[in-house]
Amino acid sequence: MLEQMGQAAKAASYQLALLSSKEKNRVLEKIADYLETEAQQILTANEQDLLEARRNGLSEAMLDRLALTPARLTAIASDVRQVCKLADPVGQVIDGGLLDSGLRIERRRVPLGVIGVIYEARPNVTVDVASLCLKTGNAAILRGGKETWRTNAATVKVIQQALEECGVPAGAVQAIESPDRALVSEMLRMDKYIDMLIPRGGAGLHQLCREQSTIPVITGGIGVCHIFVDDTAEIAPALNIIVNAKTQRPSTCNTVETLLVHQGIAAHFLPALSKQMAESGVTLHAENNALDALKSGPAKVIAVQPEEYDNEFLSLDLNVKVVADLDEAIAHIRQHGTQHSDAILTRTIGNANRFVNEVDSSAVYVNASTRFTDGGQFGLGAEVAVSTQKLHARGPMGLEALTTYKWIGFGDDTIRA
Amino acid sequence: MLEQMGQAAKAASYQLALLSSKEKNRVLEKIADYLETEAQQILTANEQDLLEARRNGLSEAMLDRLALTPARLTAIASDVRQVCKLADPVGQVIDGGLLDSGLRIERRRVPLGVIGVIYEARPNVTVDVASLCLKTGNAAILRGGKETWRTNAATVKVIQQALEECGVPAGAVQAIESPDRALVSEMLRMDKYIDMLIPRGGAGLHQLCREQSTIPVITGGIGVCHIFVDDTAEIAPALNIIVNAKTQRPSTCNTVETLLVHQGIAAHFLPALSKQMAESGVTLHAENNALDALKSGPAKVIAVQPEEYDNEFLSLDLNVKVVADLDEAIAHIRQHGTQHSDAILTRTIGNANRFVNEVDSSAVYVNASTRFTDGGQFGLGAEVAVSTQKLHARGPMGLEALTTYKWIGFGDDTIRA
Repeated sequence: MLEQMGQAAKAASYQLALLSSKEKNRVLEKIADYLETEAQQILTANEQDLLEARRNGLSEAMLDRLALTPARLTAIASDVRQVCKLADPVGQVIDGGLLDSGLRIERRRVPLGVIGVIYEARPNVTVDVASLCLKTGNAAILRGGKETWRTNAATVKVIQQALEECGVPAGAVQAIESPDRALVSEMLRMDKYIDMLIPRGGAGLHQLCREQSTIPVITGGIGVCHIFVDDTAEIAPALNIIVNAKTQRPSTCNTVETLLVHQGIAAHFLPALSKQMAESGVTLHAENNALDALKSGPAKVIAVQPEEYDNEFLSLDLNVKVVADLDEAIAHIRQHGTQHSDAILTRTIGNANRFVNEVDSSAVYVNASTRFTDGGQFGLGAEVAVSTQKLHARGPMGLEALTTYKWIGFGDDTIRA
Repeated sequence: MLEQMGQAAKAASYQLALLSSKEKNRVLEKIADYLETEAQQILTANEQDLLEARRNGLSEAMLDRLALTPARLTAIASDVRQVCKLADPVGQVIDGGLLDSGLRIERRRVPLGVIGVIYEARPNVTVDVASLCLKTGNAAILRGGKETWRTNAATVKVIQQALEECGVPAGAVQAIESPDRALVSEMLRMDKYIDMLIPRGGAGLHQLCREQSTIPVITGGIGVCHIFVDDTAEIAPALNIIVNAKTQRPSTCNTVETLLVHQGIAAHFLPALSKQMAESGVTLHAENNALDALKSGPAKVIAVQPEEYDNEFLSLDLNVKVVADLDEAIAHIRQHGTQHSDAILTRTIGNANRFVNEVDSSAVYVNASTRFTDGGQFGLGAEVAVSTQKLHARGPMGLEALTTYKWIGFGDDTIRA
């Protein structure tokens, strides 16, 4: 079955690569329309998924993530219409020139081909990913969370109706419509058909893909992010940034998880931190060298467990450690970070420069919140994923990350000397 | 042992990332000098490797590939000095701007970190790869062919002398100094330390890396390249290009392996081809539909075996098949090509455009030889590998392909709204 899907996707990708931006936008608009006019089939499938999820004892919070309503579908359709407005990177000439040999070359931006996406339960991802792939002329093979497989299948059916209405083969967007986990392993070995694999999920999914996939994988989305409070930081703005980085949306990967505090400022800073964190409802997980100072403050504080430096809390919890200097802070980040987003708060320009140069993360910040690491915030218009690897794309991935280039050589019966 | 090498490489990479172009060039010059002044230890090790290779019955051609001489070492040192002259991409600002939030961002080009390279017997690759990695501020872990492990170890020892002389840790360039093949499998799982893996070898090595590596891999270097002779091609220049693409250096990956001939020109073209190929010493492997016409010509011709459409000859052999039209040519290339380099010879602009747009290869040519796919020819100054995958880099990889970027956000106590 997957073999057939791969063949259909590859065949569709050849057609998609030839579409103009206008033609691709027409497809997207049709999808948005159909998501509204054909909403009932998607909502019915979603009800069945919710029924089963409830039987399986999923939490109310989880059920809410899975649930679609007419209003949510309208919002999803509206997102698709937004994608129409984005600039299409396909066809751009990146660079080129005339070689001494007489050959004229250019590097032209082209679609990747077929993109595989494996994601967790949220059903809006299906439309989100499909629209970004189509916008860049790529076919997509989607494998959503097993809890919403009926919703995803119904959504893709509606998308395929819209595709065929516009003369684009249904193979351009396909979903693996089975909750069978063995199909994931099979998908990971489809390097003959899939050009890039994007896992969107937790650390376990990323590790599975890294270990089993024969397709190039983009891993990311895991953020153990740090803020280093230097001895010249100003306390009030520093606390403001920390509150933003920790509490604005704690479940995201760019949320700060560990605060490293220069020993030169700790005596002043830690009491103020405790007061602010008590107000913000944040529980502190303190290293021994910060524990005493924090214990006398109003915030809830417990001793940090060593493994907590390596994991995302994704909750209102924050590690706090006093460090001797910038060197120790950088060493800690190198050991425990996930190369996602890290910040320094300082008034010392030399330390800011050192932090920027020496911390090897996708995004490094000076006197700013780690929460900025986001395609929308960075002006990319959309975000397919946040890469924490170094190949192909790093940090927030916009439409350009869904493309590659080809070298084109125009000769005049030109041979190599 | 590999764990220690990984740690040393990662630590060295942090130092290398901070070096200026001038400092890196100083290291390269010192390496070039030492390759000449310390030549004797490398030549002695090479003699031992050759002795064993001869005992193991390697062919004279292979022995010649393995052999180093003072003259060859001088040429290698001279190549290192050439790398000094290349522009250093590290530190470039790719793009940037001021966001609505007040955050100023830039994307800055930085080294990848640690690059792993697995290569076959040729001992010059050791120095070649090491110098390109150092130029871009990367550490390298090298695993050369087992036939030259003593030569590689001695070469790396000389490189490390030069590194330490310049205050750069020896961990910046390390070789796995054992012919044990199990170490390759171990190396492929060092994703904690190695940021990118480049296999330089045959299809077997690439498949091994694709299947076993948990490190992002650049695969490539396998070229089943095609030339399509359209019905409007001019015969004399077409033959000139085919001779260049087939015979200039048959053992390279950008050499043409299959000729697809439009049926509208076959009757005129095949007799002329036979004559030219006889002169050039090329054996034709003909599809049935070309066999009769070719049999009456002077060139050596045999019936093609189906699997020959999927393999590199790397010799003076060429498949020939008559196709009905451009569509059949494109379909053949999609089925049998390796997305390396493919060319159309035509005087019809519409067909040239279709070929360029519809053939999904790293390099596509109009009226030019496939032999141009090369970092030097494309003006990249150097070539680390030729990628036939679509992520990160496609086609010839120059220094830029050994870098990634980081996002840097400069705030003024800036938080996300």
